[in-house]
Amino acid sequence: MLVSVGRALEAIPRMRPNMILHAGPPITWERMSAPLQGAVIGALLYEGVVGTEDEARDMASRGRAIFEPAQEHRAICSVSGVISPSMPVCIIRDETYGNMMTLCALNEGPGRVLRYGAFKAEALERLKWVEKTLAPVLRQGIAASGGIDLRSILSQALHMGDEGHQLTKAAMSLFIRTLAPHLVRTCPNHEMLAQVLSFLDGHNPFFQNLAMAAAKAALDAAHGIPGSRIVTAMAGNGTDFGIRVSGLGESWFVAPVSQPGGMFLPGYSQADANPPIGDGPIMESYGLGAFALAGAPTVMAFIGGTAAEAREVTQEMYGITQGESTAYTLPSLDLKGVPTGIDVQRVAATGSAPWLNIEIIHKEPGTGAIGAGLWRAPLSPFQQAAQAMGQDQTT
Amino acid sequence: MLVSVGRALEAIPRMRPNMILHAGPPITWERMSAPLQGAVIGALLYEGVVGTEDEARDMASRGRAIFEPAQEHRAICSVSGVISPSMPVCIIRDETYGNMMTLCALNEGPGRVLRYGAFKAEALERLKWVEKTLAPVLRQGIAASGGIDLRSILSQALHMGDEGHQLTKAAMSLFIRTLAPHLVRTCPNHEMLAQVLSFLDGHNPFFQNLAMAAAKAALDAAHGIPGSRIVTAMAGNGTDFGIRVSGLGESWFVAPVSQPGGMFLPGYSQADANPPIGDGPIMESYGLGAFALAGAPTVMAFIGGTAAEAREVTQEMYGITQGESTAYTLPSLDLKGVPTGIDVQRVAATGSAPWLNIEIIHKEPGTGAIGAGLWRAPLSPFQQAAQAMGQDQTT
Repeated sequence: MLVSVGRALEAIPRMRPNMILHAGPPITWERMSAPLQGAVIGALLYEGVVGTEDEARDMASRGRAIFEPAQEHRAICSVSGVISPSMPVCIIRDETYGNMMTLCALNEGPGRVLRYGAFKAEALERLKWVEKTLAPVLRQGIAASGGIDLRSILSQALHMGDEGHQLTKAAMSLFIRTLAPHLVRTCPNHEMLAQVLSFLDGHNPFFQNLAMAAAKAALDAAHGIPGSRIVTAMAGNGTDFGIRVSGLGESWFVAPVSQPGGMFLPGYSQADANPPIGDGPIMESYGLGAFALAGAPTVMAFIGGTAAEAREVTQEMYGITQGESTAYTLPSLDLKGVPTGIDVQRVAATGSAPWLNIEIIHKEPGTGAIGAGLWRAPLSPFQQAAQAMGQDQTT
Repeated sequence: MLVSVGRALEAIPRMRPNMILHAGPPITWERMSAPLQGAVIGALLYEGVVGTEDEARDMASRGRAIFEPAQEHRAICSVSGVISPSMPVCIIRDETYGNMMTLCALNEGPGRVLRYGAFKAEALERLKWVEKTLAPVLRQGIAASGGIDLRSILSQALHMGDEGHQLTKAAMSLFIRTLAPHLVRTCPNHEMLAQVLSFLDGHNPFFQNLAMAAAKAALDAAHGIPGSRIVTAMAGNGTDFGIRVSGLGESWFVAPVSQPGGMFLPGYSQADANPPIGDGPIMESYGLGAFALAGAPTVMAFIGGTAAEAREVTQEMYGITQGESTAYTLPSLDLKGVPTGIDVQRVAATGSAPWLNIEIIHKEPGTGAIGAGLWRAPLSPFQQAAQAMGQDQTT
């Protein structure tokens, strides 16, 4: 349930004033790809702790900012976006297992934005609009709604062509129609409200962050079970790709990654691509995204494939998962549940690494999305994790 | 383009003060099924020309009300709903062919409503709410929007699991998100606005009427072309089922129909069903509804079929149509256009009558929807029309 919008410093228990949370496994400033460095610079400027790009680089390289994976704080980051202390965050409550909270930044829209590593005035002004307009309007509406059921929205959206990672158009539509009456009842300022509704209407990926935080809530509930071989996180930091496994505690199993192929916007090619970055593969860990591709032939068509190929991707993933979801079903497979619960041992044994629907972003900070692709996660992290589980648990 | 909301008497050129428009081919009061009679009684009470049910029956049976098919007035009626002079109507403009207008009543919501033949106080109060609240709020918002592109919405919705007849959930979602900012900018009354947005959120079939009027606009543009064998209307009045053909002028070709089978809500069976009623099959005439079932496995699942069977229905319809739509494509068939332009001669020659997605309503006025089914149109109207076209045009 999406229950509120708060501020990172107050909403995230171990957040500290000089801390910046990023996607994927741990990484040092020096090894960060340029879009992530750009987002860090933007966040330090947004926080007002530095006044220029140079000061930001200096602060970051001298170790005066702390970088930690968002996923170690029950949070997720979209693409190269980061969470810094003053940023507003959506608060998702897991109502089934212990009322834990998970968090995400508000997706701030298309263009030259922090999420893609932009840190110029335009990107910082956008963040201020999110803080001063979008966040308070949403906070009031969400409170009045009594909470928005994200699982229900994702479940319906899966019957409406979304796979919940690359495409969240249906989910966004359901989110808007559910929230709109509450926004109207709680926001007295018509122009501000119209602005927010226009923004939401114009930006389907806004729901991606919410979907990721919902997936994170479910997977964190599955994390830390002794002996469990379930993958509870897959994510990239733009340099390495890493996974976490339920029975293996806080460890990340990582491998360096290179530039992905896929379908590129006119004028761009693989040579322009940043290595995969973002906590987005939490959706595939959850059983959505590429795992639910059978229900999203539009996504497959967008990246150049057929509906039959989309079904094959989903079918293959049944081979590396432990179950079928009861919450998420696929009409194109006659309401069969999506493949969910990646078994790290099955991945290692079959050599069939998870398929991920990824957004491809430009390696230059702030340029943004230049394509999309169906990408195989590297096998090595799964092999490392399977080995760590020990032979006694592989049967 | 949905361009405005008007009043039937002013918006429909040949509308007269004592005229009531209904779905399907022409029918007299005496031959009307009970739900249609119920709606007529409700409309006369709503208009205030009678004070009681008995007076309404008396007026109708003495020929003091004129009954004409809505489709002969460039309008459509949903299920057993009617259009009477004071009712608000949505105005759809065909921007491609001569700026002609088509019209529909505003779908007034679920429950005991006129659309299902209800005529008690509850149904009449609902109509007044539509007239006093829903219609004016929508009129202002639609005007501010500059017009809502219904074809674009339907085309997107087809990629989101709708088939545009039985299921319009995605279309309704897109309609709400498109219109919401304009409603906010034009409606100063927050409570009225919240009420309208809640109503729209709670009632996906609201879009059915708009979809039907959009289909009517396109098919009327195709009507009256000498020698054309294209079916431009299919509709039921609850007693007869009729079709119109482009090259055969204003004639209806009709056959009586009986109670349809399908999936029934608990406690109901075929014996409770009214024969098919409504202008809804205009959607199949347009290439959507059952013709687009390949893209709507959720609809097929609802009526008890598989995704493969849904594709078979669409595949069969390619055999009786003249072309594939360029506006409406099916991701599940790798973006092939829907089968469109039913060729009356091909239907007659193959004996493959069109499949229609129909809502099944109770034969008692006001009880409402009791099921849904995939129903074959009767063959006889197509055979009659093919014969009327003459042998010289059948090659």
